[in-house]
Amino acid sequence: MKPMSECIFCQIIAGKVSSNIVYQDEYVMAFLSNHPVNPGHTLVVPKKHYENIYDISQEEVGHLFEVVKQISMAVRDAMSVEGLRIVQNNGEVGGQVIFHLHVHVIPMKLHNQRNDKVYRDPPDKCSDEALALDAQKIRQQLGGR
Amino acid sequence: MKPMSECIFCQIIAGKVSSNIVYQDEYVMAFLSNHPVNPGHTLVVPKKHYENIYDISQEEVGHLFEVVKQISMAVRDAMSVEGLRIVQNNGEVGGQVIFHLHVHVIPMKLHNQRNDKVYRDPPDKCSDEALALDAQKIRQQLGGR
Repeated sequence: MKPMSECIFCQIIAGKVSSNIVYQDEYVMAFLSNHPVNPGHTLVVPKKHYENIYDISQEEVGHLFEVVKQISMAVRDAMSVEGLRIVQNNGEVGGQVIFHLHVHVIPMKLHNQRNDKVYRDPPDKCSDEALALDAQKIRQQLGGR
Repeated sequence: MKPMSECIFCQIIAGKVSSNIVYQDEYVMAFLSNHPVNPGHTLVVPKKHYENIYDISQEEVGHLFEVVKQISMAVRDAMSVEGLRIVQNNGEVGGQVIFHLHVHVIPMKLHNQRNDKVYRDPPDKCSDEALALDAQKIRQQLGGR
């Protein structure tokens, strides 16, 4: 595991790397993925560095997913989708790439988008402008105008 | 949406359809999937019928995922895996098939198991004996011997 100082999510949380933040409180931050499966793809993370779901405390995991629920509704409304997948991967064999616990909130729009495509061949990184606009829409749904 | 009386998960919760239950409390039940992606694939559901994550209350979603964390650790240890995927699908386009909110806890064992296979071509339904044995292992990890 990389030292925390090199963890990209810790750097985002510390404000050392810019991101499109849509929500934060004392314990949790949510920001747009830079490699969205679909527009509006948001990551919800604990501010404290936990590698995976095994490591976080009971209280914090409860709060984390209370936030995930709120983000889910905001992403659904901001992106005008009905479908939404919530995914949390643990361990390399579990598909985890960044080893700071994170929950994917992925809007799903297309009836013919096969599930097995979700994690393969994601679209190219969105433009900074597109990401910023999506983040603004989600923040508006969360009431943070 | 089917009436709740026809919901297969409501029937399992009511004890009208048998299942391999690994955990239950006042609000939540966890039982093995009858169509496991991998052995030990467990579903965690609220006992009250909510269609999706949008409908459940803040308090209940927090508790639901506190249970998911406990189940995750038990499944990991019972199945001797390091990898684990937690997936919660909403809406038909989100991959939801049974319209009673449920969280998949899926042990992942193989380095070469491509993520895009996870939801395609699952193995045939496990034998009743294999499911019962897996459920017993998970219950033991949860301390419910």
